[in-house]
Amino acid sequence: METWLPTLETASPQEGFELAVKLSRMAVKVAQPSDVARAEGRKEYESDSAQLIAASQVVAVNFQTVAAANGYWRH
Amino acid sequence: METWLPTLETASPQEGFELAVKLSRMAVKVAQPSDVARAEGRKEYESDSAQLIAASQVVAVNFQTVAAANGYWRH
Amino acid sequence: METWLPTLETASPQEGFELAVKLSRMAVKVAQPSDVARAEGRKEYESDSAQLIAASQVVAVNFQTVAAANGYWRH
Amino acid sequence: METWLPTLETASPQEGFELAVKLSRMAVKVAQPSDVARAEGRKEYESDSAQLIAASQVVAVNFQTVAAANGYWRH
Amino acid sequence: METWLPTLETASPQEGFELAVKLSRMAVKVAQPSDVARAEGRKEYESDSAQLIAASQVVAVNFQTVAAANGYWRH
Amino acid sequence: METWLPTLETASPQEGFELAVKLSRMAVKVAQPSDVARAEGRKEYESDSAQLIAASQVVAVNFQTVAAANGYWRH
Repeated sequence: METWLPTLETASPQEGFELAVKLSRMAVKVAQPSDVARAEGRKEYESDSAQLIAASQVVAVNFQTVAAANGYWRH
Repeated sequence: METWLPTLETASPQEGFELAVKLSRMAVKVAQPSDVARAEGRKEYESDSAQLIAASQVVAVNFQTVAAANGYWRH
Repeated sequence: METWLPTLETASPQEGFELAVKLSRMAVKVAQPSDVARAEGRKEYESDSAQLIAASQVVAVNFQTVAAANGYWRH
Repeated sequence: METWLPTLETASPQEGFELAVKLSRMAVKVAQPSDVARAEGRKEYESDSAQLIAASQVVAVNFQTVAAANGYWRH
Repeated sequence: METWLPTLETASPQEGFELAVKLSRMAVKVAQPSDVARAEGRKEYESDSAQLIAASQVVAVNFQTVAAANGYWRH
Repeated sequence: METWLPTLETASPQEGFELAVKLSRMAVKVAQPSDVARAEGRKEYESDSAQLIAASQVVAVNFQTVAAANGYWRH
C-alpha cells in the first residue's frame, strides 16, 4: 500500500484540520473500498443532516489526535 | 483556500467555546459545501431534538481540544 | 454577547458537573436560538430514553473538560 | 441542592466504576427530574439493546474521568 | 457486591483489551441486571451491524482508559 | 487464545492507523464471533453511509489510543 500518512505533524491548525478530515475519510475507505459505492453513500449522507453531524463528530475526534500530536501549534 | 483557523488560542473560555462551534460547522461544510443544501439541512436539524443533542456533542469534543490547547485558561 | 463562561474553574466537582450541564445546553442554544423551539424539543426528548442517554453523554464529555481544567479537584 | 459529588476520588477502580454509573444517571436526572417519567424510560431502554450499549458508552466516558482523577489507582 | 475490578493494570495490551470488553459488559449488566433479558438483547444486537459497531465504540473508549492506566505497555 | 496484540507500538502513523482498524474489528469479533454472521453484517453496513461513518468514528477513537502510545511518532 502506498504511504498516505507519513506524519501527524502539520504546519498549522488548519492543515491539521484537513488531516483530520483525511483520516476520517480513509477509515470509511478501508470499510468500503469501492469508489462507486462510496460515491453513492456520499449522495445519501450529504442530504441527511444527522449524518453530516455524525461526520463532523468523527473529524472532531481525529482533530483531537492531530492537535495533540502538534502540541496544539502553541506559539 | 483562505485561512480560517490561524490558531487554537483564544482570549477566554467563551471565545474557545465559539471556536469549538466554528470547528464543528466547518467539518459539516467540508462534507456538504453547498450553502443551499446546508440551509435545508439546518431546518431539519433545528427542529429535531436528537440532532440538536448530537450537534452539542460535536461542540463538546471540539471544546476539549480548544480548552487543552489553551491550558484551560487557568489563572 | 454577554459573558456566560468567564472561567472553567469551579469550587467543587458538583459545581463542575453543573457547568458541564450548562456547556451542553449552551451548544444546543447556539444551534437553536429560539426559546419556543427548544421548549418543544425538550418535551420530545424528556420522554425519549434514547435521547436522555445521548444528553447524558454530552454532559460526560463536557465534564471531562471541566474536571481536567480543575485538576480533578484533588485534595 | 444537596451534595452528591463531594469528590472524584475513590478507594478502588470498582468504586470508581460505580461513581461513573452515578454520574451517568445524575445527568439523566438533570434532564428529566420526574421519577415517574424516568421509571417509564427505564422500562423502554432496559429491553432495547441499542440503548443499553449507548448507556454503557456514557459510563465509559465518565469512567475515563474518574480513572484519570484517581491516577488510575496505580500501585 | 463481589470484587470484579481490583485493578486496571494488566500484563499485556491484549489482556487490557479483554478488560475493556469486560468493563463494557459490566456497564450493560448494571443497567439490565437480568441474565435472561440480556441474553435476548444479545440476540438482537449480534445480528445488527449498527449495534455491533456501537459496541466496538464502547470497547474503544474503555480501552483508552485501560491503556493509559498501563502507560500503554511501553517497552 | 492466540496473541494478536503484542504491543501498541508501530513503526509509523500509517501502521498505527492500521492497528486502530484492527482493534475496531476485533471488538466486533468479540461481540459476534461467527464469521458467517459478520460477513452478512458487513454487507449491510458497507452500503449504509451512516454505519460507515460510525465505523470511522470507532477507528478514530482507537487511533487516539495508538497515537498516544507511540508519542504521536514525533520526529
